[in-house]
Amino acid sequence: MTAARVNETVTLRGRVHNVRGKGKSAFLILRQQTATCVFFVDDVDVSKGMVKWVSKLEAESVIDISGVVAVPSEGPVVSCTQKEVELVVHSVYCVSRSIDDASRPESDFDKEDGAQYVRVLQDTRLNYRVIDLRTPANQAIFRVQSAVCELFREALRRKDFVEIHTPKLIGGASEGGASVFKLDYMGQPACLAQSPQLYKQMAIEADMDRVFEIGPVFRAENSNTHRHLCEFTGLDMEMTIKEHYSEVLDVLNDLFLHMFDGLNERFKHELEVVNAQHPFEPLKYLNPTLRLTFPEGIKMLQDHGVEGVDPLGDLSTEQERVLGQLVKEKYDTDFYILHKYPLNARPFYTMPCPHDGDYTNSFDIFIRGEEIISGAQRIHDVELLSKRAVECGIEIETIQAYIDAFKYGALPHGGCGVGLERVVMLFLNLGNIRKTSMFPRDPRRLAP
Amino acid sequence: MTAARVNETVTLRGRVHNVRGKGKSAFLILRQQTATCVFFVDDVDVSKGMVKWVSKLEAESVIDISGVVAVPSEGPVVSCTQKEVELVVHSVYCVSRSIDDASRPESDFDKEDGAQYVRVLQDTRLNYRVIDLRTPANQAIFRVQSAVCELFREALRRKDFVEIHTPKLIGGASEGGASVFKLDYMGQPACLAQSPQLYKQMAIEADMDRVFEIGPVFRAENSNTHRHLCEFTGLDMEMTIKEHYSEVLDVLNDLFLHMFDGLNERFKHELEVVNAQHPFEPLKYLNPTLRLTFPEGIKMLQDHGVEGVDPLGDLSTEQERVLGQLVKEKYDTDFYILHKYPLNARPFYTMPCPHDGDYTNSFDIFIRGEEIISGAQRIHDVELLSKRAVECGIEIETIQAYIDAFKYGALPHGGCGVGLERVVMLFLNLGNIRKTSMFPRDPRRLAP
Repeated sequence: MTAARVNETVTLRGRVHNVRGKGKSAFLILRQQTATCVFFVDDVDVSKGMVKWVSKLEAESVIDISGVVAVPSEGPVVSCTQKEVELVVHSVYCVSRSIDDASRPESDFDKEDGAQYVRVLQDTRLNYRVIDLRTPANQAIFRVQSAVCELFREALRRKDFVEIHTPKLIGGASEGGASVFKLDYMGQPACLAQSPQLYKQMAIEADMDRVFEIGPVFRAENSNTHRHLCEFTGLDMEMTIKEHYSEVLDVLNDLFLHMFDGLNERFKHELEVVNAQHPFEPLKYLNPTLRLTFPEGIKMLQDHGVEGVDPLGDLSTEQERVLGQLVKEKYDTDFYILHKYPLNARPFYTMPCPHDGDYTNSFDIFIRGEEIISGAQRIHDVELLSKRAVECGIEIETIQAYIDAFKYGALPHGGCGVGLERVVMLFLNLGNIRKTSMFPRDPRRLAP
Repeated sequence: MTAARVNETVTLRGRVHNVRGKGKSAFLILRQQTATCVFFVDDVDVSKGMVKWVSKLEAESVIDISGVVAVPSEGPVVSCTQKEVELVVHSVYCVSRSIDDASRPESDFDKEDGAQYVRVLQDTRLNYRVIDLRTPANQAIFRVQSAVCELFREALRRKDFVEIHTPKLIGGASEGGASVFKLDYMGQPACLAQSPQLYKQMAIEADMDRVFEIGPVFRAENSNTHRHLCEFTGLDMEMTIKEHYSEVLDVLNDLFLHMFDGLNERFKHELEVVNAQHPFEPLKYLNPTLRLTFPEGIKMLQDHGVEGVDPLGDLSTEQERVLGQLVKEKYDTDFYILHKYPLNARPFYTMPCPHDGDYTNSFDIFIRGEEIISGAQRIHDVELLSKRAVECGIEIETIQAYIDAFKYGALPHGGCGVGLERVVMLFLNLGNIRKTSMFPRDPRRLAP
């Protein structure tokens, strides 16, 4: 909905958000994506029959409506996003016939006014996803998702990254374990890519220098949590390293600051619309991004009295959450980098730390205490790669093709993968990843 | 490689493209992606041992090399992309140890100079794809591919399209026939999406207004041709229509002109590099894009004496090729739109032409006589959709979920799907789609 002046005639196509008839007149609220606006229908301006017909329009019908812009007679329109105008209708045409409860603010349920509100459950929303997605908050969430992709690419293209598309159909029964979807490919065993990592690395060895990909990632994991999906969108990057893996962290620092600033500055309206239904605290982040080493993180947990912390192991989800709180208290940031993970906590292809063999050149990145990124410098030396595979109990034959990719002059490199739906969920603090996937896939849901 | 002044010292990381030792001196050509530059090593400047060591560096090794910029003593360097400079080496450091034939221009094979050149066959190239991708022409091809995606998004974002990500894992044994990859999804039958069409349409019915997606598309077709892949990258768009399906054609006109102009203006260097190995005529296109109706196309074929043309059927691949030639001769364009296809040639969900029931509001778009786009206005009326499905012999129960998506107030809409690899192949006139897929998947190839 664009700016219009008083007495101007405006024609809009949109949905009937709701209608309230009062006999001789009616109020109709029109909705376009994240915006709503009120129209007044009166038997002075149009026929009585038309007032009656408008009063009976079903919610969610698509209409073309024309009206003259006026100043609302009773002050700003509280219930609409367009508060300063009211349109006096002179024509309505119904393009297509066909949810108040679906867009009810969470705060309504806390009111002690005796009203019985219907809370639309997540599963019901997903079963009727096409209708659920029409709520202003959902319209805004998927505009934010679209923006995250655009800002990700914008930041990386400025640093000479090239966009690639790697295959999702992979030969062999399995890529790296049991958690892959298997299928038959023209008589050959195949599986769906768990990540584009091998192919990104091959692109680096093919001299692409700096690459990124945005594409689907498939995980056949039976994880029924608020943050796991069986299919999600991966934001992946990989780059050559000149001297040190901190070069990757520098790129990620610039990338995420660009993304967060871009969302706050360019998508203010969308953030407000989400906030109206799902209130959240704006994300706090520092410039430059806080970097803690794994041992520093361990010390913070131990000083806080957290038990069961393994200085040379990985963090549990709960320990990550607590560390996020401690970091927030001490540094006032919801976003930080934890790097130099123990060797035991990372896959065999992770580059060991040259100064201390117990650690690696690797990192995770967190928003509000939850991991959104896992990354590292990868081993590019064939001998070291083979040695580490053997140490981790992997049979060399099963990964020969991977090792061979580094045989013909390999470049030092590193990179990471980001989960798009997690970034959006945690930036908006939505609490469930199904809210940030348009048509989510989890162990129990494959439709619509 | 950036501009440098004479007598300046420059340090570069790149690959040894080739080395020619001449005893006391050597020429080394360094390659960085699409650029090459010559370095001169001499026992006046460095030790004899170093000249010998440099002479024996293997091609494709990664080196850090420093030298002083000089004007080439024997005039411009014909064999390099950096023709006006030669660097006098003072240090070389080998970062990683490890193809002339792979980047040989096609024209060399036509020479009658008695030389025996090795032609690297397409299959060999694909088997060693990581090395093959290092050739300057391939580096350029995938930069063009990356650019096509960026220009596609740029054009659509300017017109308020929102980027979406739809699921590739779909419930049910089959979406629309036998040509799908089937798999087991946590005990449920599933298949890989043949196209995002249904989900794009659902996004429109969910009020997203204008959407696009760039993502993988899966076809289990046993088509062994120069233009079919089992996995390719789809550039999809879908939009609401206010009055007429020509609104979609208007958007596509602007989109492709933006894409072609952008490639020619911003990727001149990459196009030249491809041209050096694979010579091609620049694409001819008109502004505005030529639009022919299907009956007009049929008439051109019939006037030319082409036999077996069915005015109410589809065109064969060969007829499309001939029509492309006739259009080129008459209108001097390699790019045109053919619209208003017969009802019999299109799927059941295509909107029939309101003025003539034998035709539809649909279109294909061609580059150099090959189809790159298929699109249409879709039926949004539930009754008409059901009627057309029955007429096409489809059992309503099998597509009930699809039909139901239009039950709650449907908006008129249309859109299309573009094959990314085909666009790049035909723009560069490369003759084989495997050249424009980084790791192609065809009925016989699932690796690397």
